[in-house]
Amino acid sequence: MNAPFQSRTAEPLALPQPYLLFLGDTQNPQFAKTAFGLRDWAGELCIGEYGVAGCGVSTGLPAMTPRQAREAGARALVIGVANQGGIINADWVPALVAALEAGLDLVSGLHARLADVPALVAAARENGRQLIDIRTPPPGIPVATGRKRSGKRLLTVGTDCALGKKYTALSLWRAFQARGIDTDFRATGQTGIMIAGSGIPMDAVVADFEAGAAEILSPDADPAHWDVIEGQGSLFHPAYSPVSLGLLHGSQPDVFVVCHSPGRTHIVGLETFPLPDIEAVIELTLMLGKRTNPAIRCGGIALNTSDMTEEAALAHIAAETERLGLPAADPIRGGAAFDALVESCLGAA
Amino acid sequence: MNAPFQSRTAEPLALPQPYLLFLGDTQNPQFAKTAFGLRDWAGELCIGEYGVAGCGVSTGLPAMTPRQAREAGARALVIGVANQGGIINADWVPALVAALEAGLDLVSGLHARLADVPALVAAARENGRQLIDIRTPPPGIPVATGRKRSGKRLLTVGTDCALGKKYTALSLWRAFQARGIDTDFRATGQTGIMIAGSGIPMDAVVADFEAGAAEILSPDADPAHWDVIEGQGSLFHPAYSPVSLGLLHGSQPDVFVVCHSPGRTHIVGLETFPLPDIEAVIELTLMLGKRTNPAIRCGGIALNTSDMTEEAALAHIAAETERLGLPAADPIRGGAAFDALVESCLGAA
Repeated sequence: MNAPFQSRTAEPLALPQPYLLFLGDTQNPQFAKTAFGLRDWAGELCIGEYGVAGCGVSTGLPAMTPRQAREAGARALVIGVANQGGIINADWVPALVAALEAGLDLVSGLHARLADVPALVAAARENGRQLIDIRTPPPGIPVATGRKRSGKRLLTVGTDCALGKKYTALSLWRAFQARGIDTDFRATGQTGIMIAGSGIPMDAVVADFEAGAAEILSPDADPAHWDVIEGQGSLFHPAYSPVSLGLLHGSQPDVFVVCHSPGRTHIVGLETFPLPDIEAVIELTLMLGKRTNPAIRCGGIALNTSDMTEEAALAHIAAETERLGLPAADPIRGGAAFDALVESCLGAA
Repeated sequence: MNAPFQSRTAEPLALPQPYLLFLGDTQNPQFAKTAFGLRDWAGELCIGEYGVAGCGVSTGLPAMTPRQAREAGARALVIGVANQGGIINADWVPALVAALEAGLDLVSGLHARLADVPALVAAARENGRQLIDIRTPPPGIPVATGRKRSGKRLLTVGTDCALGKKYTALSLWRAFQARGIDTDFRATGQTGIMIAGSGIPMDAVVADFEAGAAEILSPDADPAHWDVIEGQGSLFHPAYSPVSLGLLHGSQPDVFVVCHSPGRTHIVGLETFPLPDIEAVIELTLMLGKRTNPAIRCGGIALNTSDMTEEAALAHIAAETERLGLPAADPIRGGAAFDALVESCLGAA
């Protein structure tokens, strides 16, 4: 048995909670997925949101200044936005300094480190506050061995970034739990780690150790135990494919679920790259994944239908299930289609 | 026009030369490929070799103590061996301290940093010597964009590690030069960087920036210019595949050459993993490589026949050329087969 979100391997993080979610000057909701993820999966830890001039997104949580949030009980400002490259926007710094002055610690999952911004270091020191960079991988990650580990593993993969791999993994993990299955959610990105309180930031690991990091993320377990592993990137992504392949080879999944956003035609931010089709992702994942687990199979498809009406979504899900001969579902919508996806992943015949 | 080994992008390294090659306690020649590479491709810079108790390999250079080497003109001891994980063996430290005391700088391409070994830091300080870790990637590597760059590119790929990807790239680069072609050798590993004096240690780059590193390694060039890029690892290697895929996607090669060691049956050090066959490597490299260069093609096969007699090698090369329908050659043996491989890579009909 295992407690929710408790890791067996990585050092547990102890983040100050609850959170004020920082949205920066973000206009594109796809770059605020950390904030949305925290709202949806750790809502009891989020008491408000905070943006700067130009911010065009909202989580629906109450807008608060850092001082108001501190008075309402917040302990940390969490940077809830990301951008390509994961940098700390210079326009954010005055707001982050204000948070430190209001008595909040800062928690960041960006590539760039809070501790490398002199103004933040100075303000943290002056106000006796912490700068917590959760994207620093644990020390001592080994080179992968390829050794087959005990227990069962599910990995979410995708046609692109930012289309539901984390939500799908969390949904499946909850569904497995609801069926009384011994299971862990294994977080691989900033939001997942913030939700879970543990994990490995796979995209911040040195390439030679990428598969080794995936190996220690999901260690040997009871034969009936399931690790549900949050996927990253896409094997077809011209920048992030190394992360996806290391995660696939090191996770040695028994089952993968392909995550896809039906309306999307091109890789986000790279408009010359058409999205691969779902069949191509299945084919390539099987071809590469069988290297470390010859029994790998596709459990089904997770469709992000958040832009569709309920009627259109259900019709699309049914059509894709029929077309691909595999269970398709939107994990957020749940329902019978999602139950079928869960059963397929678990191998119930 | 361009000078030999001169990089257009990376900060040029200025390593102290000539070198004393350190072999540690290595028994397996495959782990001494840095030393052999320097002997073969920068022989004028190597004045001797130095091992510790248990060392079972030799480059054929004169054995020297650090003091003898210093007296013969050496300026640096280069760690010419690697092991899985790239650590600094504790048994090596007294010998490395002796080198510092003899007046040599230390140059290392291992993952582990000389500067993290307190005994070396202390001895370097005491003796006024440098600890040079050439595996530290340059700062500011961008996320890959996938933008198609001008100029032509060749990448060496492999069925495994340590079977001739660097030697093949160097041989092709020299052959291109001999034909009057404007060309650069692009180094991606410790030995290549020591030989070239510049490059990017691809396996030490953070995974999210792996393809971006490959992009800046071979920048835009004249349409007739060739970058010959040193490959790393194998797409089929359960630990190092992320490095290979980032290099493939970021290099966007027009041509690749598959490097293979005919006698090898399993991945070095991972005896449960059979070597992929050459056709599988061609198929997977085409499938993945066309994502960033739809015109990618296989130029031929480089066979490491160093363990064979001349007669057996020539027969094997001829048989593989016939079987695969592509030019096969051993770049180190050269000859007509190698000329045919070079012409195939250049696209001469």
